[in-house]
Amino acid sequence: MGQLKQTPSDMRGATGTGRSIYELLRTQIADGSLPAGACAPSTRGLAAELGVSRTTVTTAYEQLAAEGYLVTATGRVARVARPLVAAQTPEPSGIRRTRPVPKLSDFGHRVQEIGLSALPHTEPVRFDFLYGALASRDFPSLAWRRAYQTELLRQQSRLFYAGPEGDASLRSALQGYLRRARGLACDAEQIVVVHGSQQGIDLCARVLLNSDDAFVFEDPGYLMARRCFEATGARCLATAVDAQGLDTSSLPQDHRVRLAYVTPSHQFPLGGVLPITRRQELLQWARRQNAWIVEDDYDGEFRYGQRPIDALQTIDGDGRVIYVGTFSKTLSPQLRLGYLVLPPEIVPVFRQAKRLTDRHSPLLEQRVLASMIESGAYERHVRRMRRENERRRAALLDAVTRYLPKDAQVGGTAAGLHVVLWLPFLLPAEELNVVAAARQAGVGIYPVSTLFVEPESLARPRPAGFILGYASLTVEQIHMGMEILGRLLSQGSTVK
Amino acid sequence: MGQLKQTPSDMRGATGTGRSIYELLRTQIADGSLPAGACAPSTRGLAAELGVSRTTVTTAYEQLAAEGYLVTATGRVARVARPLVAAQTPEPSGIRRTRPVPKLSDFGHRVQEIGLSALPHTEPVRFDFLYGALASRDFPSLAWRRAYQTELLRQQSRLFYAGPEGDASLRSALQGYLRRARGLACDAEQIVVVHGSQQGIDLCARVLLNSDDAFVFEDPGYLMARRCFEATGARCLATAVDAQGLDTSSLPQDHRVRLAYVTPSHQFPLGGVLPITRRQELLQWARRQNAWIVEDDYDGEFRYGQRPIDALQTIDGDGRVIYVGTFSKTLSPQLRLGYLVLPPEIVPVFRQAKRLTDRHSPLLEQRVLASMIESGAYERHVRRMRRENERRRAALLDAVTRYLPKDAQVGGTAAGLHVVLWLPFLLPAEELNVVAAARQAGVGIYPVSTLFVEPESLARPRPAGFILGYASLTVEQIHMGMEILGRLLSQGSTVK
Repeated sequence: MGQLKQTPSDMRGATGTGRSIYELLRTQIADGSLPAGACAPSTRGLAAELGVSRTTVTTAYEQLAAEGYLVTATGRVARVARPLVAAQTPEPSGIRRTRPVPKLSDFGHRVQEIGLSALPHTEPVRFDFLYGALASRDFPSLAWRRAYQTELLRQQSRLFYAGPEGDASLRSALQGYLRRARGLACDAEQIVVVHGSQQGIDLCARVLLNSDDAFVFEDPGYLMARRCFEATGARCLATAVDAQGLDTSSLPQDHRVRLAYVTPSHQFPLGGVLPITRRQELLQWARRQNAWIVEDDYDGEFRYGQRPIDALQTIDGDGRVIYVGTFSKTLSPQLRLGYLVLPPEIVPVFRQAKRLTDRHSPLLEQRVLASMIESGAYERHVRRMRRENERRRAALLDAVTRYLPKDAQVGGTAAGLHVVLWLPFLLPAEELNVVAAARQAGVGIYPVSTLFVEPESLARPRPAGFILGYASLTVEQIHMGMEILGRLLSQGSTVK
Repeated sequence: MGQLKQTPSDMRGATGTGRSIYELLRTQIADGSLPAGACAPSTRGLAAELGVSRTTVTTAYEQLAAEGYLVTATGRVARVARPLVAAQTPEPSGIRRTRPVPKLSDFGHRVQEIGLSALPHTEPVRFDFLYGALASRDFPSLAWRRAYQTELLRQQSRLFYAGPEGDASLRSALQGYLRRARGLACDAEQIVVVHGSQQGIDLCARVLLNSDDAFVFEDPGYLMARRCFEATGARCLATAVDAQGLDTSSLPQDHRVRLAYVTPSHQFPLGGVLPITRRQELLQWARRQNAWIVEDDYDGEFRYGQRPIDALQTIDGDGRVIYVGTFSKTLSPQLRLGYLVLPPEIVPVFRQAKRLTDRHSPLLEQRVLASMIESGAYERHVRRMRRENERRRAALLDAVTRYLPKDAQVGGTAAGLHVVLWLPFLLPAEELNVVAAARQAGVGIYPVSTLFVEPESLARPRPAGFILGYASLTVEQIHMGMEILGRLLSQGSTVK
């Protein structure tokens, strides 16, 4: 037994001595100390030598036999199995980096090349106007927790995979909600529940776009959607945006166009609300091009002054508009719950695609949300959030007037949870300097330049612009943040 | 005002009379009763006529102006905007089916053609040996609920998107768990948290396979994985399986092969545990082919008698094995939580792909799970489940001996949550008859034939086989179900 080399012992709790016997023999077999065909130590002898019960040794041997290291037979001595392929010793880490790695797919290569920017600093600065963030205290924790407990107790007698389209309770609740809140009359069968709007957009990209197609995209627009469409290999046709949203007069005529991605309720990021004329022009264009329209209604719940504008899908007579909804702006972006409202013709293929992608969205959360919509708690919450965000928005507009230079302008204020601050006395190239200086002073603001598609559109003369999200801040924080920013800008310390 | 046609009134709660004025005018504009350029009724006149306040009318007009239907200016009468594209009337539903729908992508077409089978009956029969289902009473509701409440209260001050790789707490907890439970030493940075193993498999398919590639697949094998790989357009190369798992001697030499999907811990469905020799042959083959290996460790936690066998990835010196783990078999398939352990070289591309796909998995559930692993509650639960399922398995084996014909055989019993029942006195073609007859008698069993890839493998002489999952049943249900099945089979009423 003197030949048994002690390996760095890995005494995984529950299995104790048996485990280390197993490890010892396995190492010996792997490094050739016990070659193929050789007899393993007798169980009786090994047990005596190690001072353990014979059963402990036998169990380890059975494990090794089960894994194919040993060949055992009742009454016969155990032998090392053959033919064992020469064991692989992991290479030293220096060499490891050069090891040949198998190929990636074209999609994999594109994803690798896309080089998504890092997430915005996870360490928030004191006054962080981070767009997409919500205040945790706004989350309806009590109602959510109660509904969660109720649904947890209500689980059926067995747990099994659910349908890809989403729970019937949530789809039915959503149908009612969409009618009341977004003027959208659809059948619950047209709804597919997804993991946030990002998955909805990704499903559209996969199911509707080939690598030799093209898609129309708002310029500037929502970067994570663009990346998703670009990852299919399809070509991005940037289409200009003005204060009213997508400039439909400049929609391209191109036989490769299969899809247009639009944010008609509140253009991201500039904030325009697409007028009915343009909506109809967009639909007519889509008919001529035989193209799909993906309508991302990412913050359609928030519109100040007027009732939220009806969804584009409400005036779509052709079944070309795919409506993308989300709970990221009303509840939490970490919840990952959203939905598609699909033209009936493509419901089956989207259900199949969702099922292949991840079977279905988590069931319990769907039911919790359904019960909150059914009870009215969700819409009460949305109304409260609308009032809350109206206050924040008013504070921001007030603070801009009070603290920022006179020629500062604010756009996109009619809806949503962010505005764009335009500073005509700065050039777009100066945006990043201002962002960095503001950050150092404890104020987070975000440049618009990164959201433009075409270098030409960046070159077009325009003021420097910054996105200010306000949904995660208090009225006081908004005031203090703008005061600091105003001081910075008036000092001119940020600009040469 | 007599010309105002009453539309099917849609008095969405909150907005009342204003809403119906809005609807009336919008309908008139859409159907041409109020043509472009025409004056809208005066607000004062309309208010008087309808007996509402002028503000109500003005608000409706402002909404219409905001949406671009009307052009308003202070002190001037509102006019219908021009040029309005002729409004689309939705076509009657009879014609609707023939409307031209834009094209789908190649992926979309393949998904449509794949025709996934429907989910197994959601209405369980009395004794349903449905594989993949768990008993709800096995779910650790109390511990889960407590951890959920704690994590809900612990939320940070703002809610924002998290990293695609998954929460650091869960990845670190998983790293420790994988080392203890699966012998897998990895870095937390190699882990990407996904929505159940299905999303893990789908990410592998997208990132690693092109449409002109081929992949190796166990025959019979896990259908939902196969469909996922097939949806990329890649060709499925079926490789035979015997009682020990994948027959590595028949692995194909084919330059198009990019990937092999395997279930080494407990082959699905036949249940073999891949011996070390074959594991090494598989790795050597992958090196020659320069192919990836996707190791689906779907129920690696459940192994009876011996300690669970270590993961294939533990002996991979090349960085070719992608480990897929899931909580669907230990907690709930409805939770949609799983993870990939990736070779370091491809971590960045998988993180990017996950981010484009759906940003990240729900954060709260990740933290709940992390805290349950850290506290030891998760592993206590897994041990309890192992004992519980060992009892169920013993009951099933006992019941088969007791109630089924003598020549019935049970395979794949060493691990997992299901076995395969082979009935040598029946032909594979008779499986569906037996399934239907059993179902009518209140017993759910599932044919193996549907999991074979190649028509040739179906034609090979073999007994009829049935998958019996036992994890959702009580010991009594297992006995009663087998008793009924035994009676059916001995009557021979199911077979001609």
